[in-house]
Amino acid sequence: MELNDCINYLLTTSQNKVFKHFKYLLDPYNITPAEYGVLNCLVNRNLNTPKSIGNALYLEPSTISGILDKMSKKGLITRKTDTSNRRIVLIEETGKAYDLWPALEEAVSRLNDDCFSDLTNDERDTLKNALLKIMNSDF
Amino acid sequence: MELNDCINYLLTTSQNKVFKHFKYLLDPYNITPAEYGVLNCLVNRNLNTPKSIGNALYLEPSTISGILDKMSKKGLITRKTDTSNRRIVLIEETGKAYDLWPALEEAVSRLNDDCFSDLTNDERDTLKNALLKIMNSDF
Repeated sequence: MELNDCINYLLTTSQNKVFKHFKYLLDPYNITPAEYGVLNCLVNRNLNTPKSIGNALYLEPSTISGILDKMSKKGLITRKTDTSNRRIVLIEETGKAYDLWPALEEAVSRLNDDCFSDLTNDERDTLKNALLKIMNSDF
Repeated sequence: MELNDCINYLLTTSQNKVFKHFKYLLDPYNITPAEYGVLNCLVNRNLNTPKSIGNALYLEPSTISGILDKMSKKGLITRKTDTSNRRIVLIEETGKAYDLWPALEEAVSRLNDDCFSDLTNDERDTLKNALLKIMNSDF
């Protein structure tokens, strides 16, 4: 099979390029793409536990835990114990993170605009839906 | 922006899933997805230098060099100096790699079938073309 027909090659190569560009666009705010994902879960989806955020981002518990540690050190989130169940840790974005949010949303809009600039609206929609189907399929 | 609309989230999450599945399918042959990519360049594209293979896979020189080291230790490739230009290293697949090739091609066909099982032919073609456009765009 030609490499250009292998779905792993297509996804790995395009993801690598898009990730690097997103990293560059977020760099002025000292935020990584994964940290943007966590903030998006907090601000847009009202998720507030490591487990629910990890599930939304398809990350292992140890990975999300490491990301949250770094975000705490950067002053982007706080962790507190749920008073109704002391085994549950609740995550909240800080004022600093909230103030940064509009600039981060601009960066992600710029990312999408750059990535979709050579695609028609139909191609863009089909791409998004196809990737969601792959993410949610059973293999 | 909702996470499902962010191209970095869509690509990172679907790539992660597809990569893990490809790793699982290649595991019986003790081959990684990156090593499959290198063998594909040697067998299908007749590329035979670290530079040309690295370019095809969009990998940094240090990364492709590390992959070739491991493949050499596994007995999958040999390196020799180009007799017409001693600064050029030529890479060749071994008999062992060549014998494995049909099984690896079956694994990659299975990967594509699994990933595309919920997509129509049109969706599959649009997905492939959209990813190629992103890989080749100027941002």
